[in-house]
Amino acid sequence: MKQTVALPQAYRLLNHGPTVLVSAAHGGRRNVMAAAWAMPLDFDPPKVAVVIDKNTFTRGLVEASGCFALNLPCRSLADATFTVGSISAKDEGPHDPDKFERCGLASFDGPVTGLPLVGGCVAWLECRVLPEPHVQQAYDLFLGEVVAAQADGRVFSGGRWHFAPEHESLRTLHHIAGGAFFSVADPLQAKRLF
Amino acid sequence: MKQTVALPQAYRLLNHGPTVLVSAAHGGRRNVMAAAWAMPLDFDPPKVAVVIDKNTFTRGLVEASGCFALNLPCRSLADATFTVGSISAKDEGPHDPDKFERCGLASFDGPVTGLPLVGGCVAWLECRVLPEPHVQQAYDLFLGEVVAAQADGRVFSGGRWHFAPEHESLRTLHHIAGGAFFSVADPLQAKRLF
Repeated sequence: MKQTVALPQAYRLLNHGPTVLVSAAHGGRRNVMAAAWAMPLDFDPPKVAVVIDKNTFTRGLVEASGCFALNLPCRSLADATFTVGSISAKDEGPHDPDKFERCGLASFDGPVTGLPLVGGCVAWLECRVLPEPHVQQAYDLFLGEVVAAQADGRVFSGGRWHFAPEHESLRTLHHIAGGAFFSVADPLQAKRLF
Repeated sequence: MKQTVALPQAYRLLNHGPTVLVSAAHGGRRNVMAAAWAMPLDFDPPKVAVVIDKNTFTRGLVEASGCFALNLPCRSLADATFTVGSISAKDEGPHDPDKFERCGLASFDGPVTGLPLVGGCVAWLECRVLPEPHVQQAYDLFLGEVVAAQADGRVFSGGRWHFAPEHESLRTLHHIAGGAFFSVADPLQAKRLF
């Protein structure tokens, strides 16, 4: 059953982690972008890694402010997430509505950093950049220390996600390709073999 | 519904990407470990990032050989994946069976690197380390270029995952905590808002 995967499609094999919305602000501007490539980097103090392309408007805000937030959108925000990931604030004039407004996304202030967090998401991580100029420049890779975290208590409590059937619309999004997303489901408990 | 998440549990909010088995070999020894923290880093040439703790036996093999493989296990390998993630080759004597054997995992040689790939997985990425000694040392973070990729054609074709009901056991594993894993399911197609 093994088939070779063309190298330009190899990233798709690992692409279906939880999609995030990266939000940032600086000098009176704010923005939000979608990213499929984010992961934890350490437990305590918690750190994360996220890829933020040089061509994004968010990148400049993150570099200028030294902060970013990772917001975890859910199924009810799938269309907004896809749209946020398909347009750029670089196409806006300075007085146009920003991407939050254009995509109908509410926001609230992060309690520690004051960053704009995305309403309707199911988790929020406020992060301070751990300055690593070389990997930022060479790989578009940003490392951050998580300085505050919140989650929707209906689907994350006791330190773990649990998506009950009535919370279908609150399940996280896992990007396949082209705006198609999986959700997570069907938890199983593995047992040690010995 | 927003609740504060204690910082030592914040990583759990992002933990449920696809779990991987990292395999490596050097000097006649081979090993395999479980990792929840892996993600793509670039499209073409494809690159990946993965966290490999200093305390693992695999880490030494990766550093010595300059190669690693990311294998994507599926539901039918959940118990083996949990076990691989719960024991260390550091507890083996040099003549003991290795973790592949102890956990009942078949292996086959990667066509490009010769690395031991894990049988029964649904995708395999052979990678060469992109040497970044500072982030390896400071963050246990390894960057790699993908030099070959394969996938199980029953569940990955046309450049995307698609898990049919009859392939329940081939769905990827997404770690929640303590050996509990989600699978991905219920694909939805997002639409652009404008």
